[in-house]
Amino acid sequence: MIRINENFRKLPSSYLFSEIARKVGSYEVSHPDVKVIRMGIGDVTLPLPRAAVEGVIAGAIDELSSDTFHGYGPEQGHDMLRHAIGENDYRRRGINVADDEIFVGDGAKSDIGNFVDIFASDTRVAVTDPVYPVYVDSNVMAGRAGELLADGCWSRIIYLPCTAENGFVPALPSEVPDLIYLCYPNNPTGTVLSRSQLKEWVDYARANGAIIAFDSAYEAFVTDEDVPRSIYEIEGAREVAVEFRSFSKTAGFTGMRLGYTVVPREVMALNSDGTRTPIRDLWLRRQTTKFNGASYVVQCGGAALYTPQGKTQVAGNIAYYRENAEMLLSGLREAGLTVYGGTNSPYIWVKTPDGMSSWQFFDFLLDTCHIVGTPGCGFGPSGEGYLRLTAFNTHENTAEAVSRIRSFLKI
Amino acid sequence: MIRINENFRKLPSSYLFSEIARKVGSYEVSHPDVKVIRMGIGDVTLPLPRAAVEGVIAGAIDELSSDTFHGYGPEQGHDMLRHAIGENDYRRRGINVADDEIFVGDGAKSDIGNFVDIFASDTRVAVTDPVYPVYVDSNVMAGRAGELLADGCWSRIIYLPCTAENGFVPALPSEVPDLIYLCYPNNPTGTVLSRSQLKEWVDYARANGAIIAFDSAYEAFVTDEDVPRSIYEIEGAREVAVEFRSFSKTAGFTGMRLGYTVVPREVMALNSDGTRTPIRDLWLRRQTTKFNGASYVVQCGGAALYTPQGKTQVAGNIAYYRENAEMLLSGLREAGLTVYGGTNSPYIWVKTPDGMSSWQFFDFLLDTCHIVGTPGCGFGPSGEGYLRLTAFNTHENTAEAVSRIRSFLKI
Repeated sequence: MIRINENFRKLPSSYLFSEIARKVGSYEVSHPDVKVIRMGIGDVTLPLPRAAVEGVIAGAIDELSSDTFHGYGPEQGHDMLRHAIGENDYRRRGINVADDEIFVGDGAKSDIGNFVDIFASDTRVAVTDPVYPVYVDSNVMAGRAGELLADGCWSRIIYLPCTAENGFVPALPSEVPDLIYLCYPNNPTGTVLSRSQLKEWVDYARANGAIIAFDSAYEAFVTDEDVPRSIYEIEGAREVAVEFRSFSKTAGFTGMRLGYTVVPREVMALNSDGTRTPIRDLWLRRQTTKFNGASYVVQCGGAALYTPQGKTQVAGNIAYYRENAEMLLSGLREAGLTVYGGTNSPYIWVKTPDGMSSWQFFDFLLDTCHIVGTPGCGFGPSGEGYLRLTAFNTHENTAEAVSRIRSFLKI
Repeated sequence: MIRINENFRKLPSSYLFSEIARKVGSYEVSHPDVKVIRMGIGDVTLPLPRAAVEGVIAGAIDELSSDTFHGYGPEQGHDMLRHAIGENDYRRRGINVADDEIFVGDGAKSDIGNFVDIFASDTRVAVTDPVYPVYVDSNVMAGRAGELLADGCWSRIIYLPCTAENGFVPALPSEVPDLIYLCYPNNPTGTVLSRSQLKEWVDYARANGAIIAFDSAYEAFVTDEDVPRSIYEIEGAREVAVEFRSFSKTAGFTGMRLGYTVVPREVMALNSDGTRTPIRDLWLRRQTTKFNGASYVVQCGGAALYTPQGKTQVAGNIAYYRENAEMLLSGLREAGLTVYGGTNSPYIWVKTPDGMSSWQFFDFLLDTCHIVGTPGCGFGPSGEGYLRLTAFNTHENTAEAVSRIRSFLKI
């Protein structure tokens, strides 16, 4: 009889978000008059920029006539979008990325999840802890994680703890990994790496034959000059880094599904005969075999974000969420809480007060303030004792949340 | 140093379509005044049904207001679309499929390619020969194909030859496979299985603990009462079959990217401890971990295909391509060629005349008739001696192609 991929059975059921949903649902049933404010899941609230909607509509109208109809597009994305990305997100910022090193996809989650396909099954993976669960789960499915230990760690994954004690800056590991996931500005902690801190990782990868999978989905929130928005701002990164980007949080494309992955020609991996293959070739082969490109109309919406109107509208959305982050930061500090992140980032990482566990603080916030956060322990062992709040709600709800927290927590 | 997935290196470079593109490009450069008619790649030519475009536009306008904005949707698709599919494509035809057994995706190619993730790495795979290359290539990447032999076959794949000699009906294999790919109406041969022929395969899978991956991307072209449009018309199929569908060829969604996969609750695979897991749970886990749903606006376009206007427009497109297929069938027969498929299918499978090889006939058609087909050998060893033409061009080009073939080939 056909047998399953046993690695799937190793994955614990996704306890975190189902448990949150269960608790919130149960609370709302027993408190029907209370307005619960959701600051847990990282979904956005502002509608799409008008330019994006107009782009989608113009693209859809193309499809009404045989003369302008688009059938199958290139799996890597239409040239108009790849070029707009290359020009605006890289070359005009002085970063060397060619259009044909940009692979348009249906979102960073798919690209990050599928990227593990192109490497050997015994690849050693390193992740920061706490971490976005897709990095870990996709490698569990690929059979690289080993066994799940009692402390919630996987036996073959190298964890790089990021806590207040080390300023949320991961130390170089003693055991050398092959593939290193870094996400900056970070999800969930909202913290960043400076240019010199990121340079250490690029140098480490170059010295050790490792590849960095760099998730910069939140780069649009960076304001500090010393915080890189792309890993390719760092010398040598083109030899060792792949960069994943998303339109979800910059332009509200969470439901539209559009992102891209940059794979420079110089990034190599070893073959069994000692020769080297550019991983760009492998990713191209993976995508042309198992993917057929992002939707044409969605790509039209994405390209419209690079028009002058689109840029202004995106900047407006980012500014709006930044104000929320500032409101949260200052309000929570005034309430006596210790908070991290929130500058250069839409995420606020709250230290639980009075030694509460992540779940205890989650319950307290829900019961007392009617606010939903995400317990930090859900992102990995080093997230215990923290809770994540997002800046993606409305001004009104964010202000209300801050006011509730201040009135219940003020020391 | 990080190492590659060596299975990727086993894949020969995609010779077929690059070689076609090279030959056509070179011919067009040396014959700039000749109008070349492309009937090779299976892309459509009619524009999108108006209902679909209106659906996309309405969906895009939703996204302009906070009150109607959709962020992250369910990874399995929005309920409105899953319900429309379940009602129209299954239950109203008397077929038992529940909405939550339908997984909406960004196209059949992605779903078929990714589906291999959920099974054991040593799964034995059977494919009909000739075959859609994605079934084979995705299993090569997953390390299940063994080695590429001199005859173009993979050592661990079980081939089921389909040729004129067996009426294009695959015989049950002597070696028992775990996973059997069947595509009916067939790509590339355009042939079909009757209800009783498909029943043999369902019974075989039930008797042998195998799963059938049934690709019914071309079901809309079926007219014969005795030809099943869904494998779930066959008794027992809910225990052993997964069905892949696409909006590409029915509604011209090749560039829109929308399809769905049906995974009934009853389909099981074996765990190492002898228990069984519903593969629906595994696919759900795969999709929630590595995919974030098809685009909302595209799903709105898809749902609009199930309105009365949408159904009429889709039926009009299918009728148009059917007329092309009939034109090709009768015209090619009048020219003295032996042809298969073309009824219940948009593909015409042409036996090469005078013992020509697939490539010789391809060259002949290009040089003499200025028509581009796809050499049958590109789909597998049993495709040698055949060439595929598609009915997806315009009436005008199809008529012109038939007229050219008749004047040059008429015996």
